[in-house]
Amino acid sequence: MNFCSDNTASAHPRILAALSAANSGAAMPYGNDDVTRRVEQKIAALFERDCAVFLVATGTAANVLALSVLAPPYGVVFCHPDSHINRDECGAPEFYTGGAKLAGVPGAHGKIAAGDLAAAIAASGQGVVHHAQAACISITQATEAGTVYTASEIGGLAEAAHRHGLTLHMDGARFANALVALGGKPADLTWRAGVDALSFGATKNGAFAAEAVVFFDKAKAEEAAFRRKRGGQLWSKMRYLAAQLDAYLEGDLWLANARHANRLAAELARGVAAIPGAKLLHPVDANEIFVTLPEPVIAGLEADGFQFYRWEGPGSTLLRLVTAFDTDPAHVEAFLTRARGHAARAA
Amino acid sequence: MNFCSDNTASAHPRILAALSAANSGAAMPYGNDDVTRRVEQKIAALFERDCAVFLVATGTAANVLALSVLAPPYGVVFCHPDSHINRDECGAPEFYTGGAKLAGVPGAHGKIAAGDLAAAIAASGQGVVHHAQAACISITQATEAGTVYTASEIGGLAEAAHRHGLTLHMDGARFANALVALGGKPADLTWRAGVDALSFGATKNGAFAAEAVVFFDKAKAEEAAFRRKRGGQLWSKMRYLAAQLDAYLEGDLWLANARHANRLAAELARGVAAIPGAKLLHPVDANEIFVTLPEPVIAGLEADGFQFYRWEGPGSTLLRLVTAFDTDPAHVEAFLTRARGHAARAA
Amino acid sequence: MNFCSDNTASAHPRILAALSAANSGAAMPYGNDDVTRRVEQKIAALFERDCAVFLVATGTAANVLALSVLAPPYGVVFCHPDSHINRDECGAPEFYTGGAKLAGVPGAHGKIAAGDLAAAIAASGQGVVHHAQAACISITQATEAGTVYTASEIGGLAEAAHRHGLTLHMDGARFANALVALGGKPADLTWRAGVDALSFGATKNGAFAAEAVVFFDKAKAEEAAFRRKRGGQLWSKMRYLAAQLDAYLEGDLWLANARHANRLAAELARGVAAIPGAKLLHPVDANEIFVTLPEPVIAGLEADGFQFYRWEGPGSTLLRLVTAFDTDPAHVEAFLTRARGHAARAA
Amino acid sequence: MNFCSDNTASAHPRILAALSAANSGAAMPYGNDDVTRRVEQKIAALFERDCAVFLVATGTAANVLALSVLAPPYGVVFCHPDSHINRDECGAPEFYTGGAKLAGVPGAHGKIAAGDLAAAIAASGQGVVHHAQAACISITQATEAGTVYTASEIGGLAEAAHRHGLTLHMDGARFANALVALGGKPADLTWRAGVDALSFGATKNGAFAAEAVVFFDKAKAEEAAFRRKRGGQLWSKMRYLAAQLDAYLEGDLWLANARHANRLAAELARGVAAIPGAKLLHPVDANEIFVTLPEPVIAGLEADGFQFYRWEGPGSTLLRLVTAFDTDPAHVEAFLTRARGHAARAA
Repeated sequence: MNFCSDNTASAHPRILAALSAANSGAAMPYGNDDVTRRVEQKIAALFERDCAVFLVATGTAANVLALSVLAPPYGVVFCHPDSHINRDECGAPEFYTGGAKLAGVPGAHGKIAAGDLAAAIAASGQGVVHHAQAACISITQATEAGTVYTASEIGGLAEAAHRHGLTLHMDGARFANALVALGGKPADLTWRAGVDALSFGATKNGAFAAEAVVFFDKAKAEEAAFRRKRGGQLWSKMRYLAAQLDAYLEGDLWLANARHANRLAAELARGVAAIPGAKLLHPVDANEIFVTLPEPVIAGLEADGFQFYRWEGPGSTLLRLVTAFDTDPAHVEAFLTRARGHAARAA
Repeated sequence: MNFCSDNTASAHPRILAALSAANSGAAMPYGNDDVTRRVEQKIAALFERDCAVFLVATGTAANVLALSVLAPPYGVVFCHPDSHINRDECGAPEFYTGGAKLAGVPGAHGKIAAGDLAAAIAASGQGVVHHAQAACISITQATEAGTVYTASEIGGLAEAAHRHGLTLHMDGARFANALVALGGKPADLTWRAGVDALSFGATKNGAFAAEAVVFFDKAKAEEAAFRRKRGGQLWSKMRYLAAQLDAYLEGDLWLANARHANRLAAELARGVAAIPGAKLLHPVDANEIFVTLPEPVIAGLEADGFQFYRWEGPGSTLLRLVTAFDTDPAHVEAFLTRARGHAARAA
Repeated sequence: MNFCSDNTASAHPRILAALSAANSGAAMPYGNDDVTRRVEQKIAALFERDCAVFLVATGTAANVLALSVLAPPYGVVFCHPDSHINRDECGAPEFYTGGAKLAGVPGAHGKIAAGDLAAAIAASGQGVVHHAQAACISITQATEAGTVYTASEIGGLAEAAHRHGLTLHMDGARFANALVALGGKPADLTWRAGVDALSFGATKNGAFAAEAVVFFDKAKAEEAAFRRKRGGQLWSKMRYLAAQLDAYLEGDLWLANARHANRLAAELARGVAAIPGAKLLHPVDANEIFVTLPEPVIAGLEADGFQFYRWEGPGSTLLRLVTAFDTDPAHVEAFLTRARGHAARAA
Repeated sequence: MNFCSDNTASAHPRILAALSAANSGAAMPYGNDDVTRRVEQKIAALFERDCAVFLVATGTAANVLALSVLAPPYGVVFCHPDSHINRDECGAPEFYTGGAKLAGVPGAHGKIAAGDLAAAIAASGQGVVHHAQAACISITQATEAGTVYTASEIGGLAEAAHRHGLTLHMDGARFANALVALGGKPADLTWRAGVDALSFGATKNGAFAAEAVVFFDKAKAEEAAFRRKRGGQLWSKMRYLAAQLDAYLEGDLWLANARHANRLAAELARGVAAIPGAKLLHPVDANEIFVTLPEPVIAGLEADGFQFYRWEGPGSTLLRLVTAFDTDPAHVEAFLTRARGHAARAA
């Protein structure tokens, strides 16, 4: 009964089956195979646009490959202070870009407001040789706070970015969860809203290890192939990376997976919010819940064997609860039942 | 009927089965899972030594992670001019080390001689501020020419390296093929001979995408964990990387796989060598054959649908033929039969 | 009548004379000359300690050479958000360190409090692979706000840093101004208080272009020589860099220069503070004044031909006024007289 | 009596005088001063072309700033194996480019032949993701062997480079010596022949420490300003860097200096060549002589107090003798007289 993260989840059986199906005979390496071609076409169809697609195995790799193309070594990447690229990638963006700076633009519930972005760009000293140069903005969808950007909000950020010559990157490690939360088409939440490059995640939503970097401007991606290779991210047996995404997109498996996770998160959120003393920190738009609970309730749940993170370290009563495509509804129900019981005893 | 490379091969059914077996329930991410622990222990047992193990998905990643720990940005990595790190990694070693130089030390049949290494180090200007500083040597086992280093040869190189304060890295993308060719124990071909860090390959020999960087001196590896993460090489669902290596080592599957490939390579080598006009370029120690054949023979084989690389580009009559764990003996036989036929017609 | 910066100042005649004196006959290059030896000895004597000295031409070069030795590529350098390394070096620290992160620790009047540093380190995730690793703290003396750290304050920061395994770098571009403001010995404000490496500035205080990086732990500096060279910072005709510092230190010229600048800054600060509507933003400890003045006064001074920066861009009424070793007391007097006149007229 | 290098020379009195003349009153920093403007105009006039000029203090800085603009991190820079950028800059090109590879193209007398360049490019795998990508070629003028490229030879190299999409960089640390050797106009030896960027050296030929990077295509240089700053190469008191080049170019001082050095080199070369047992290794086109002499002659000269490098280390009888703008003709005469004497005694 693990609510630690969606990366504690397994891989979906259909993705395993696809791997198995691809595992037959010889295939040319490094992406020169049929499955990779098919995935590229599926992604183009999905986004209703010809685009450049680069498959990699980790979300960090996807993000930093994108950023290395969008920002020069003397560039600035604006991002939320709590963003994964800033907090949780051990300097990978700085490494891949050759030393670009990440500049935090704070905002409520993990989101950056267009006005704050514009102000940050204006204060950044564009054209002044002493300052690193504003190059791009990276936003996370769904955010690290479990919220989502609407197409209109993305459009506002893109407008502010493009007006000043910046590009817009979206870390879509949980893009599926955001999409099913918002409805609409993938294109509306990305390039039609002004997104230049997307890290299209699958790992957290049912794959073993598979992400796609999607450049909507193919010219911008010219150098991405070389950067992927020198990053040690180009698989020789690429068909096995591609097969995961092939199955992920087939029959909208990815959307079904995300819907399951979001639905259980909503159920879990409703339940925990009703517990006396509970307080949700952010709206629960996708599959992450940040909630403060009374210590006896938390301790009780831990003793029951439930796994989750005390978000601010040992002793913290702020929890992060994450659901995934394979979360068992019975686990959610059990969690809530036990939590209510602990709360009653503590009262 | 593909002899292009061992990376056109599939994955071994037992490795697929292991992935399937690992695909159940939740597991803590980033290597904090049971399968990863088990693989670390298996590798330690295999090498008869406590060592630091870092799993990654590609051979390039393994090599450059190792080198980034062994060489400072102002360092020199000596290697064979034809080595994979020098020719085929698009500058990944320079990237991960922060700008170290790769210095070629030529040698017959893809191998570096200890005397040549010593001479190169002596000429490199150790301690002189104008010159990049000799930091380590990287050798490939089996080599890019399909040959192998004996334990004694490795020892000679290690002695030359260590005497001058350098460390020794082994690119073991085909370590299994070398080991079964040479016999003996893994430890004898690595740390007992003076190897400091090994890229222990599995991808070419039956895995989907799995390699292990093994540091025999655990202290030297202290920084490797951070470098793997910032390289975007740390899998969240690490169990799926670990499961591959777990099955790879179980019941000596890796050795059986390599023996199969080597045996067919030997058979293929014997056969092609007997074709009129054929000339083997290097001894065939492992699973790669470099052979010059008459153009009509090559053209005939291509027309037959056999796949292989003309090694020096279009028109080249030097072929590289590679066998793998899943090469069908019937394909080898068919290749030889057809080749002999083409040769006879051409005569 | 220029109060823009101490880098608009000329070079001191005695430093020019030293350059002239050194300009005779041949001298071995790259620091293998008598003047360089002498400067190294003078610096060791000045700091009462054997130390490793590396001469470079710019303050940025000095800072980033020091940081590149103190922080690994996956490191974090804590600094004030307004510090020169963070704001005004176009990402040079990120470049030289190979991608380390600069993390801002805010504090009043340009200074970091030891408690805030300790809290930042505690929150940084030491040992956790997802986060860049706390490596060092860099403080500026005198600060970018024109204030100074006392020996005791430095000691508190050093204690917090060292307790957690970090080192302490001091950007001493205006070390002379701080020293004469505080009194005491150079050693007391540096290594005795726990400073590990100092950028010892001379350019702003009378040199043409000369700074020294001083490592108080000679072992830590082993790699600095190679990093200086590969940074393109090693002068062939080093004697001309050394001659500047030789004259700078001779007869305490550097202290006399700084005393002049500080005295005039104090005089200017007293004068402007008395102008109706004026407000000093920070204590004036050294040679920089940050003051808000009524717009008519500023406009009047500009019309008079005085040069200074409106610190927050066009229209800003916050001024930075900087004095230097060669600031003419008559200019200060003229500035105050005119300012008082403009204020009277505006009243 | 020092023939070690032209960097053991002093600075020309007129350059010292220019520094002195510039040392008066305040000047805006970072190149926003009159002298810098004037130098930029002089260089444009000299090269008969509007161009982008970046002043730096060292030859290494000039070279690597140019290369960092011309080559991407995944690029290849072709150069002579003996070139300064390859042998004597401790990996600075790799550092500034973010990890580009330097690929040696050997050639007689320090020069690369156009055919060899074309062959190297052809073999480099342009467009193939596994290989670092051919980006530019860097040639040295005068070469490290003391020879010069004719305009026609440069044109041939440029043609080969441009045809394949590469740019051409010229390391002109001794550009003056080459120009006076060849005659003609600076433009003919640079952009008219196809040079894209020039490191225009002055340090070895009479300056204290001053070089200019000249980009003949101003668009290509857009990023150079930011790269200079983050390299720690942007002087605050830029007028003192500019003043050196101002005087260097004034009244063709630079050409007079180079003529002096070349003339004495020719005289010295003639003299040593006539010594029994002497053998010149390369044509003496500029101001460097590579000559093998009998050991007793060398030992005798050393005992006489002459300074020079045994080029291949202790015991080597291959000497490099370098003359400079300030070499005393009497020293040349003395050298020859003593050498002849030692030779006679040895006979």
